[in-house]
Amino acid sequence: MFYHVKELQYRSKPECPDPVYAKKLQEILGGQFGEISVAMQYLFQGWNTRGDGKYRDLLMDTGAEELAHIEMLATMIARLLDGAPDVELDEAAQNPVVAAILGGSNPQHSIVSGLGAMPSDSVGNRWTADYIIASGNLLADFRANLNAESQGRLQAVRLYEQTDDRGVKDMLSWLIARDTMHQNQWYAAICELEAKENIVVPSTFPRELEKQEVAYTLFNYSLGNQSAEGRWAHGPSMDGLGTFNYVEDPLPYGKKPKLNPAPPYIHDTPLFALRKSDDLPDPDMK
Amino acid sequence: MFYHVKELQYRSKPECPDPVYAKKLQEILGGQFGEISVAMQYLFQGWNTRGDGKYRDLLMDTGAEELAHIEMLATMIARLLDGAPDVELDEAAQNPVVAAILGGSNPQHSIVSGLGAMPSDSVGNRWTADYIIASGNLLADFRANLNAESQGRLQAVRLYEQTDDRGVKDMLSWLIARDTMHQNQWYAAICELEAKENIVVPSTFPRELEKQEVAYTLFNYSLGNQSAEGRWAHGPSMDGLGTFNYVEDPLPYGKKPKLNPAPPYIHDTPLFALRKSDDLPDPDMK
Amino acid sequence: MFYHVKELQYRSKPECPDPVYAKKLQEILGGQFGEISVAMQYLFQGWNTRGDGKYRDLLMDTGAEELAHIEMLATMIARLLDGAPDVELDEAAQNPVVAAILGGSNPQHSIVSGLGAMPSDSVGNRWTADYIIASGNLLADFRANLNAESQGRLQAVRLYEQTDDRGVKDMLSWLIARDTMHQNQWYAAICELEAKENIVVPSTFPRELEKQEVAYTLFNYSLGNQSAEGRWAHGPSMDGLGTFNYVEDPLPYGKKPKLNPAPPYIHDTPLFALRKSDDLPDPDMK
Amino acid sequence: MFYHVKELQYRSKPECPDPVYAKKLQEILGGQFGEISVAMQYLFQGWNTRGDGKYRDLLMDTGAEELAHIEMLATMIARLLDGAPDVELDEAAQNPVVAAILGGSNPQHSIVSGLGAMPSDSVGNRWTADYIIASGNLLADFRANLNAESQGRLQAVRLYEQTDDRGVKDMLSWLIARDTMHQNQWYAAICELEAKENIVVPSTFPRELEKQEVAYTLFNYSLGNQSAEGRWAHGPSMDGLGTFNYVEDPLPYGKKPKLNPAPPYIHDTPLFALRKSDDLPDPDMK
Amino acid sequence: MFYHVKELQYRSKPECPDPVYAKKLQEILGGQFGEISVAMQYLFQGWNTRGDGKYRDLLMDTGAEELAHIEMLATMIARLLDGAPDVELDEAAQNPVVAAILGGSNPQHSIVSGLGAMPSDSVGNRWTADYIIASGNLLADFRANLNAESQGRLQAVRLYEQTDDRGVKDMLSWLIARDTMHQNQWYAAICELEAKENIVVPSTFPRELEKQEVAYTLFNYSLGNQSAEGRWAHGPSMDGLGTFNYVEDPLPYGKKPKLNPAPPYIHDTPLFALRKSDDLPDPDMK
Amino acid sequence: MFYHVKELQYRSKPECPDPVYAKKLQEILGGQFGEISVAMQYLFQGWNTRGDGKYRDLLMDTGAEELAHIEMLATMIARLLDGAPDVELDEAAQNPVVAAILGGSNPQHSIVSGLGAMPSDSVGNRWTADYIIASGNLLADFRANLNAESQGRLQAVRLYEQTDDRGVKDMLSWLIARDTMHQNQWYAAICELEAKENIVVPSTFPRELEKQEVAYTLFNYSLGNQSAEGRWAHGPSMDGLGTFNYVEDPLPYGKKPKLNPAPPYIHDTPLFALRKSDDLPDPDMK
Repeated sequence: MFYHVKELQYRSKPECPDPVYAKKLQEILGGQFGEISVAMQYLFQGWNTRGDGKYRDLLMDTGAEELAHIEMLATMIARLLDGAPDVELDEAAQNPVVAAILGGSNPQHSIVSGLGAMPSDSVGNRWTADYIIASGNLLADFRANLNAESQGRLQAVRLYEQTDDRGVKDMLSWLIARDTMHQNQWYAAICELEAKENIVVPSTFPRELEKQEVAYTLFNYSLGNQSAEGRWAHGPSMDGLGTFNYVEDPLPYGKKPKLNPAPPYIHDTPLFALRKSDDLPDPDMK
Repeated sequence: MFYHVKELQYRSKPECPDPVYAKKLQEILGGQFGEISVAMQYLFQGWNTRGDGKYRDLLMDTGAEELAHIEMLATMIARLLDGAPDVELDEAAQNPVVAAILGGSNPQHSIVSGLGAMPSDSVGNRWTADYIIASGNLLADFRANLNAESQGRLQAVRLYEQTDDRGVKDMLSWLIARDTMHQNQWYAAICELEAKENIVVPSTFPRELEKQEVAYTLFNYSLGNQSAEGRWAHGPSMDGLGTFNYVEDPLPYGKKPKLNPAPPYIHDTPLFALRKSDDLPDPDMK
Repeated sequence: MFYHVKELQYRSKPECPDPVYAKKLQEILGGQFGEISVAMQYLFQGWNTRGDGKYRDLLMDTGAEELAHIEMLATMIARLLDGAPDVELDEAAQNPVVAAILGGSNPQHSIVSGLGAMPSDSVGNRWTADYIIASGNLLADFRANLNAESQGRLQAVRLYEQTDDRGVKDMLSWLIARDTMHQNQWYAAICELEAKENIVVPSTFPRELEKQEVAYTLFNYSLGNQSAEGRWAHGPSMDGLGTFNYVEDPLPYGKKPKLNPAPPYIHDTPLFALRKSDDLPDPDMK
Repeated sequence: MFYHVKELQYRSKPECPDPVYAKKLQEILGGQFGEISVAMQYLFQGWNTRGDGKYRDLLMDTGAEELAHIEMLATMIARLLDGAPDVELDEAAQNPVVAAILGGSNPQHSIVSGLGAMPSDSVGNRWTADYIIASGNLLADFRANLNAESQGRLQAVRLYEQTDDRGVKDMLSWLIARDTMHQNQWYAAICELEAKENIVVPSTFPRELEKQEVAYTLFNYSLGNQSAEGRWAHGPSMDGLGTFNYVEDPLPYGKKPKLNPAPPYIHDTPLFALRKSDDLPDPDMK
Repeated sequence: MFYHVKELQYRSKPECPDPVYAKKLQEILGGQFGEISVAMQYLFQGWNTRGDGKYRDLLMDTGAEELAHIEMLATMIARLLDGAPDVELDEAAQNPVVAAILGGSNPQHSIVSGLGAMPSDSVGNRWTADYIIASGNLLADFRANLNAESQGRLQAVRLYEQTDDRGVKDMLSWLIARDTMHQNQWYAAICELEAKENIVVPSTFPRELEKQEVAYTLFNYSLGNQSAEGRWAHGPSMDGLGTFNYVEDPLPYGKKPKLNPAPPYIHDTPLFALRKSDDLPDPDMK
Repeated sequence: MFYHVKELQYRSKPECPDPVYAKKLQEILGGQFGEISVAMQYLFQGWNTRGDGKYRDLLMDTGAEELAHIEMLATMIARLLDGAPDVELDEAAQNPVVAAILGGSNPQHSIVSGLGAMPSDSVGNRWTADYIIASGNLLADFRANLNAESQGRLQAVRLYEQTDDRGVKDMLSWLIARDTMHQNQWYAAICELEAKENIVVPSTFPRELEKQEVAYTLFNYSLGNQSAEGRWAHGPSMDGLGTFNYVEDPLPYGKKPKLNPAPPYIHDTPLFALRKSDDLPDPDMK
């Protein structure tokens, strides 16, 4: 169950309206690695955790925080849109700034949301649960989380570089710091589980059931062998259970597949039509 | 540029047709963490790598291999659908197996693809590029890759448990082994980059520009404090640059937001309507 | 900002596992009118409300409650999936119940989420922000909310009828009651605003700028005139500003449109090809 | 069955081409509340109405009219794109208007549709049936319709404010008037059904099966109690069957959920890994 | 503008309800090549045709007919769902037919649409405008139409084979015949335009601007040369303007791409991290 | 199985960076008819071909080539983004070119992909497998392919017209030529199959099972009869098996549908509410 308090986790106020930046900022609100994604991902992982110990608690702590970040960004975007000029093409003739605003802003901010934030990314794609994952396996999911915080912080940093507004930069410096923490925390949780389980997910599948002979092999399918220089091509494997090896010219292990014909009720190309034809009409005679 | 050879990377032939399992197997072909996802993710990361050294080569090697896995799964699914019975409801009255097949198979396998594999997951959602990421930052992206291989191997293992067909299990034991390798290889690549860059992505953003005071803090937003037991709540941070601390009762740092009214051309709720009203009609009198 | 408490708003425990029902119950968790939709809709409307009075507060109250409902449903679904049988086709031959489970359950519940709830509907479509609306105009949005609670309660009632499990029915009787309240509350809020603003949204557009002559006309485009029997076809209009009238045989007001040819750089069908042709080859001679 | 006449319902011709406005106008053609949405929504509701009286007729009347509105907008957009300049970046250096056009127009209008309208919204999202609803319950669906006409008229009015073209304004004044009628007509139909059924949808679910004790309660989950000022917090409920009450400090009714461990074939985190760990490696020693 | 008549284009009544078949039949109503797709595709092509001659008229004729087909299928699906049993799992224990119905029907038909048709395909994906095309170039678009009618008739025939209900087969025999006509008509229209324009779309791009030397070459990228046996590998090209030739061992024409480093504000992997590393930690020592 | 060589099929280097054009060029990489679509479509068709002769080989040849085209476009887009200016609104005041770039570029190119290509179209929609088709019926699918190459070449030509960069034009002249070949090759393959099978897909459905009497009829549902002028309205049908005929005033063959009421557990509008009402409250008295 959730309680909301009306105060923001951190202040969220730009120096000036900037509808073009509002459009961009949508990326970390409603994009693939925006705050909606991490909030929903952590909450679903928490709700699905079978066991109620510290990992579930950590997931709920962080999920609840990410809801607060959605709120901060929604507030910032509404303020960046405040009093956005009601521009028309004529004015652009006078003024390149107006032209840029006209071109660079999101028309849905004025037509659809009434100068409010939208659950969308910086090009207008609506948020989708395709972005999130909760598998029940905590090591797998903490890796998903570490990735999400890495991509998210990278995007926040890129956005930090694209504005001079001190209010926006102030808020982003908060979000970037929280992403630093969140990368550290998932990293710590991963280390704990890897120390107990080994690094390969899932750790509970019997090794003898997988094809051991290719479990530590790098196949060089991209002609040229720079990839042989990496740590992944020689020495003990990272899970400590095998030895990496490199196959420069990998050959197929299987044969050419040949599928049976489909049964008649499928109405595929009839067999007689798949036989050699001598009678294609000459296009000159058509 | 790519060349195709007709032989499969590894054999892909079930003992018997099984349309219900064919539906399930679609998950690791066209689902969120299926082979289309990893193929496209690695290829796009490779093409976007700025620099042409071993990392780009590794990405292209693995991307090309994943294309071969799509092919193996597409072949397996077509064979699992081979001669799928053309069942009708009457027959179900006689036979629970027929009833189960009727219910558990994917109708698009007979109506749309003519007993062929589809670029879809196990419930029929078509594959979407929403599933993939290529950010240009290799450490971030290798984490995405380690996650993808973790989720993918987990799903393959779960599917392995759901069949007795030795042909299917044989092929899955190959794919599971390759996922072991791929987890190891991305892990190795991550270790290399973390050793050079530190663990927080991106490593190039100046620390003084983020709010240092909350960069290593766990806020306990989920009442109850089991999360305080984790490694993430005390001791040196994983990046070696700070000290974790735990805030049991986090308070807001910001104030209540109050947004300005929208300009008239937005036609939001008019201000007079937001004032206190005494005149709501009594529903009994309507 | 949000705090989470670990206790559920209301208990959520089935008498028995039932993976087939778990699949169905996803509809009111992650479907078009499921709890994710109402939670996100109310929160976004609240964050975008320009003014911080009772309407914003009501939106945040209700949005926070809907988060608790997602949690209850996620818990229920995980428990319905508890110990779901690891069935195979062979067993279905013995047992029609197994056959039904095999056919009627969602394969992603075992392959993807590890027996946890998913952010999806009852056929597996992932939740999308296409489902929600926050326009900034409160009367418009409260109508969206009243609709969402109407559709949502209807679906919950239909699901109530499809189970005999007393635990599930107990939880649904809670959710159905809350939907009763939420329909009542948005209805009350709508009455308040309609009493102040009139019923047509937006109320601030000058009447003389719309084509008055067709603002209260029912055009009978569906031949036959049963629609003339309705209240909407005669008498004073509901907004009290006009008189309904009925046009039995509506004629076009406009002319046939004729578009100009596209400029050459568009490479549409060339003009010479649009002229009359006498020379279509006889198919017998092909 | 449908007949098409070539004349438009109302004229649809701009004074001048304006590709930037053409992009915006797509919102009410192919957006969430555009004409495709209302046409498809009313037609599906009509086709699914069980009974063939005046409500079905009204739905078909209005659905057929909305098809005519798609046509008017498609025609207008094609004309706004007429002779759109084939601009390049060099020209932008000379001319801010060209710069604005370059930035503010939809590239698919020239690349994909050949200067024609697209079934998309103002940022290019393709129309999806996620936008519509037809539940079989007429009161629920008429509320969906009243909402759609409210959102749609709001967007049309906002677009009216964003142009000076008299031809566009003329057409919009027609569409806005029709939305006035359609809000009035669904309002009338709702009043009829509410008068017969009571206001809570569905009206046929026995009251004693829902948790009566929370059917008229406002829970204050958003700390602070401005929401107590509303009509929804005191007095008789809008359905006339209860009394609103306000709970300032709502407590959970349920207990902390604790889920059982997953069975082994799911390969979740193994139980031993969920026990307390003392051995997390010190990051300084890595 | 459109008029609706209440009579169906052709009768649409099954002998018996069959919710499993109702689910399947959704494919040709709301699937990729269902009736919504062809209706919207032809109408958009018609509205965007620049010129108002016979091609536009043909598009509008056929688009209006396809609306009638949506209506017939919606009616059929509602009737197939009529009185669908309100089954529960207990009953399945007694009866494999009930088990099959439970598994093979679409839960949204009872929960969401109230036993009505949905704008979705046979696995529940909602219809999307991603399925359609209107490019402005009639020859290109008529090819899209011929493809749509080919795929659509194929699916209708496959569905015809999957039922014994004489009412359903009667209606499908109508739709299949109409698809025969529509394939013939688009074929005729294509022949007319090809005769005037030549076969390559667009016909107006100057040949000298494309790389003539590879405009008729088959590159054998799939090792093995069965493809050399086809008409496409030798003789005059189909457009009559070149000669097909076959390249057995195609070599790259380009060089290895090497991208420049990203600018610092992008925060990609820093250059020093891309240099050779000797210091990857030994996993045994971690 | 696939091998990758690092050299490009053809060179792909612009004269100058141009982020606005990079956004547009995404259309033929990740749009509906972009290179991802044709690559995936041909590969899936090849994998699903039941039979391993020349058609399967041709599909794999061309599918592998399209992968090389994705690569060329990804490389080109990365180079067009090279050193894209890190512009801010202030600079736009000085410079209309900067304004145009600001407005016309894709913000995800800097925020999400780090100046790399994305699997998206020119407005940012992510690629989806909704775009492709593989039905198992080769004649149907080759028509899909001919359509895809027609739409794709049309889009490439339109893009060719929108740039002056000689490097871009050089690469496009290669892709346009390859599309010429691919249109020719699918055309040849279609001619072969049509010559053996007749033109109507599928060719194996018995003619007597379709309603012969409407299999060659053009119904004039769009009032006015220009469509009677086409080849499709008179003379022998294109399949040589019938005679086209034209029905100027088509009447319905079916009756008005009347659906049964829904069963009570569906909770549709109750029957008493569908009876005539005299008691709608007068709005003036509300």
